Amino acid sequence: MFRNKLIFMMIATLLVFSGSSSVAAEEKVIKWKLAMTWPAGLPPFAWTVTRFADNVEAMSGGRMTIRVDDKNKHKAALGILDMVKAGQYEMGHSASYYWKGKDINTMPFTTMPFGMTTAEQDAWYFYGGGEALAKEVFDKHGVNQYQGGSTGNQMGGWFRKEINSVDDLKGLKMRIPGFAGEVLAELGVAVTNLPAGELYTALERGTIDALEWVGPGMDINMGFHKVAPYYYTGWHEPATDLQFLINQDAWNELPADLQAIVEIAMVDSKARMYWENYAMSAEAWSKMGVDYPNIKVRTFPPELIAEMKAVNARLIAETSARDPMFKKIMDSQAEFMAKAREWTKMSDYLYLKDNIE
Amino acid sequence: MFRNKLIFMMIATLLVFSGSSSVAAEEKVIKWKLAMTWPAGLPPFAWTVTRFADNVEAMSGGRMTIRVDDKNKHKAALGILDMVKAGQYEMGHSASYYWKGKDINTMPFTTMPFGMTTAEQDAWYFYGGGEALAKEVFDKHGVNQYQGGSTGNQMGGWFRKEINSVDDLKGLKMRIPGFAGEVLAELGVAVTNLPAGELYTALERGTIDALEWVGPGMDINMGFHKVAPYYYTGWHEPATDLQFLINQDAWNELPADLQAIVEIAMVDSKARMYWENYAMSAEAWSKMGVDYPNIKVRTFPPELIAEMKAVNARLIAETSARDPMFKKIMDSQAEFMAKAREWTKMSDYLYLKDNIE
Repeated sequence: MFRNKLIFMMIATLLVFSGSSSVAAEEKVIKWKLAMTWPAGLPPFAWTVTRFADNVEAMSGGRMTIRVDDKNKHKAALGILDMVKAGQYEMGHSASYYWKGKDINTMPFTTMPFGMTTAEQDAWYFYGGGEALAKEVFDKHGVNQYQGGSTGNQMGGWFRKEINSVDDLKGLKMRIPGFAGEVLAELGVAVTNLPAGELYTALERGTIDALEWVGPGMDINMGFHKVAPYYYTGWHEPATDLQFLINQDAWNELPADLQAIVEIAMVDSKARMYWENYAMSAEAWSKMGVDYPNIKVRTFPPELIAEMKAVNARLIAETSARDPMFKKIMDSQAEFMAKAREWTKMSDYLYLKDNIE
Repeated sequence: MFRNKLIFMMIATLLVFSGSSSVAAEEKVIKWKLAMTWPAGLPPFAWTVTRFADNVEAMSGGRMTIRVDDKNKHKAALGILDMVKAGQYEMGHSASYYWKGKDINTMPFTTMPFGMTTAEQDAWYFYGGGEALAKEVFDKHGVNQYQGGSTGNQMGGWFRKEINSVDDLKGLKMRIPGFAGEVLAELGVAVTNLPAGELYTALERGTIDALEWVGPGMDINMGFHKVAPYYYTGWHEPATDLQFLINQDAWNELPADLQAIVEIAMVDSKARMYWENYAMSAEAWSKMGVDYPNIKVRTFPPELIAEMKAVNARLIAETSARDPMFKKIMDSQAEFMAKAREWTKMSDYLYLKDNIE
């Protein structure tokens, strides 16, 4: 009996050992949740997020999964920063300028009116000091911030009536986020921010008279033109970049290989969204005139643009005087942009001028 | 003895089992070699490749390493496609238009004279049909091709003397690759291609009279201005993208998670190189006038540009008539560019016009 008992024990030990690696593998699966500002399936914003989550799972061989919750699930489209900070979600996907009410210094990482174009801003963020400034700002909120996908230069928005002067803006109720909202508020606009899912209804019911969203690739699908047919070219968001947020405690617990996977998957998604949205905008713009002949494309009058520029410069100066961190970010952007714009002029701008006009 | 022998065998089995996972992990390290056209350390081209290799190792937790051989190691700067095809290297990093002598259809994935800008071409390649066409072309060569890093809009090159007319081009010996080389050859230029390491010496010794390389971020370091001070703006490479190549047999042997890691690391490197080179060009351009006042920036005369455009269009038509695949790629680019350029005009171009002039 002793011998049989010994053999039984050793077989049992063997079974435990041989099974241990798969048990360990199962235990090692890291399951994160990500809250995004956008409705499920919204192209290309939601696609960018699901692409990121799918890539993390594929690259980690299933060792890490990220569940994506859309705004209908978490019911807090504009509460992403708070939820990630609190650790309710390990990650978020939103836009940094949505937090301007909480911290004005989160704003300039999205885009600035009359600021850098997409190429210029990407060069600044990744190779011109932007990333370190973003870290300084978001460390205070206990989260890491990463660029989350550029829309490129945005259209100036949809209006029921033509805007011919500063007077036409006075009393107008408009959805417009970021520093552009601050500028228009100074010019008499009643400014608000609303998440994507509420835009059309608000415009149709007259809660707002005008709105800006993104550009043709995304706007036409929303149907804004049915209510507000004047479609203005942009001045206010030349390089809008969305953002990924990561709770710092969750980040610090991640093994180094998964940190690398998450970081590089975010860059892939950020870059691809720009290319995807550019293709969507090119396609939508080319069909717009045929499919929706009632849309009236306009540019704001030069006097109004000049007025907006002056107000923008004054507000930057005033805010910089109050807030040293804001001044630090604005100085960094201005210094980089002065150099980058000269190069943009000598390269893409001159080239386009030769080949457009 | 029987019992002792049995126990010994089971202990031995146990030891083998418990050690099996680490033995397997060591065996699983996949070691690839990558041959690049560039000298070691050349910013940002070589940096892009080493960043890629480092990222693959980090993301795979060391399960995959990629040794990068520069052109001084493999001695075949312009032989990358052949070496990857032959399996001498699993990967390569080069420029697709270097293979125009072997297969004219490899060329349009780098850039085309008077063609798409970087944003337009990226949108076309990833979301407008370009990738599928590249697959069709490179499958014939037994390799996968991936975009490898955009330089953005390139400068038109360095010349000893001012170019005021088509006559000034006749007999000129110039290093210029791609379709632009074909265009200039039609205009009487003796066209050649030389790799990076041979450019300065060739220019200094008079083997060539002129050359184009990239843009201020890379050119100034090469010292071309000491010999050829006339620096022309670009017409010929509005969106130059380098390329990664992967031997298809090597690719097919890679597990799915490592395939995902390699693919996404390439997109990261491709995107980052554009941002990095933009920052380098902005910085170099801003210092150029002060540090090198002898550099004379010029644009080609409009009559010459018109002549180049006409020759470019004629050569595209002639080559398309001979080669259905070339026609297919040209048609795809032309159709996409017509749409994308309208959007570029309404977005970045109008914005820059308002903020530059």
